[in-house]
Amino acid sequence: MNDSEGRKTVTVDIRKDLFGANEQAAMLNAELFKKHGIKAIDIMGSVGTGKTQLIEALCDRLGRGRRILMIAGDLATRIDADRVASHGVDTVQINTGTACHLDARMVRVALDDVDLSKYEVVFIENVGNLICPAGYSLGVSKKVVVLSVTEGPYMVRKHPLTIKRSDMVVINKIDLAEALEFDVDRLLEDIREVDANLPVFRVSAKTGEGIDSFISALGL
Amino acid sequence: MNDSEGRKTVTVDIRKDLFGANEQAAMLNAELFKKHGIKAIDIMGSVGTGKTQLIEALCDRLGRGRRILMIAGDLATRIDADRVASHGVDTVQINTGTACHLDARMVRVALDDVDLSKYEVVFIENVGNLICPAGYSLGVSKKVVVLSVTEGPYMVRKHPLTIKRSDMVVINKIDLAEALEFDVDRLLEDIREVDANLPVFRVSAKTGEGIDSFISALGL
Repeated sequence: MNDSEGRKTVTVDIRKDLFGANEQAAMLNAELFKKHGIKAIDIMGSVGTGKTQLIEALCDRLGRGRRILMIAGDLATRIDADRVASHGVDTVQINTGTACHLDARMVRVALDDVDLSKYEVVFIENVGNLICPAGYSLGVSKKVVVLSVTEGPYMVRKHPLTIKRSDMVVINKIDLAEALEFDVDRLLEDIREVDANLPVFRVSAKTGEGIDSFISALGL
Repeated sequence: MNDSEGRKTVTVDIRKDLFGANEQAAMLNAELFKKHGIKAIDIMGSVGTGKTQLIEALCDRLGRGRRILMIAGDLATRIDADRVASHGVDTVQINTGTACHLDARMVRVALDDVDLSKYEVVFIENVGNLICPAGYSLGVSKKVVVLSVTEGPYMVRKHPLTIKRSDMVVINKIDLAEALEFDVDRLLEDIREVDANLPVFRVSAKTGEGIDSFISALGL
């Protein structure tokens, strides 16, 4: 389609017929978490937004008294799970090979021989990708998307569906905003345009800024 | 699978049966580009790595004498195409809706009523995603992956397939490496481990550093 200025835009529509099966598996996961009184949180976000660092900060603040399991999704390596494990937290790494997101069945397989009665909180770090993870329910209590001031100004405007499908937004690496000349208020306006009521947290997982209010909002 | 330290890793294997059709479409695109003597370059990389800024820098350096078409892939908006269009370059924006990558057929649709005899170079900016775009041939001469020092240290180790499937690597935002305490040599070692012979360019699309050698390597 050419607009009045002769600029061409093509819109592609793909159908995802796999979602029915995933929704069913997600409901089973949700039942499993509920049965054990577990709060499960899906942490989504692109590569390098600091998802692992955020989980490390949450685990440290919550302390070892809170029984925490961390599930990490990556195409390859155990890097993220090992980082969190070094904080005294139990971890399961899911290696997806080529899959760009976690789905509910992968989470179920990861939980297969885990004694869930040991845990109160499950943090699921999704595959680093701002697009696909938002399309798959995992059966969690909250879906959180982590944005970072290092990603440039257009994350929200280019990914409105990911924002819409999230229950909370964390704007991470807030300590770098000034050095990178990043306009956080502008990003907040973009988020408000997609969803006026979405809870948004300005956080630095590195310095700890904003972590306490985020923990309160998660009900942890 | 639990390893000797009791750490659990689950490996998921998904089958991509769609690739046959895409490879055929990619061959048709390649023939089309060849017929018109066009060099087509697929620029891949995660959100905020500076793909658009890199294309802007390339267009400016190549000048208006070089007849350039830019195709931009995003889920939504014309932001990237419009940025490049402001440099006097013809553009087509592909809005993929929910698709996390471009495929060869999308590119073909984007080219449908374009007079290719006008161009010598086609830059295709893929959807911001370090994973899926690498799995789809578009029929281009070179597949380039753009990494950024803002993404944290593990991009290569977590995404070896994307590196393997690329013909060149650009490490962008090199001007920020020191401020972010980013170890570029370490990243280079990770790349060398995946592919010892892959051409790698240290670039700042912002300051222009490294752009000339990248252009030479592209044969432009």
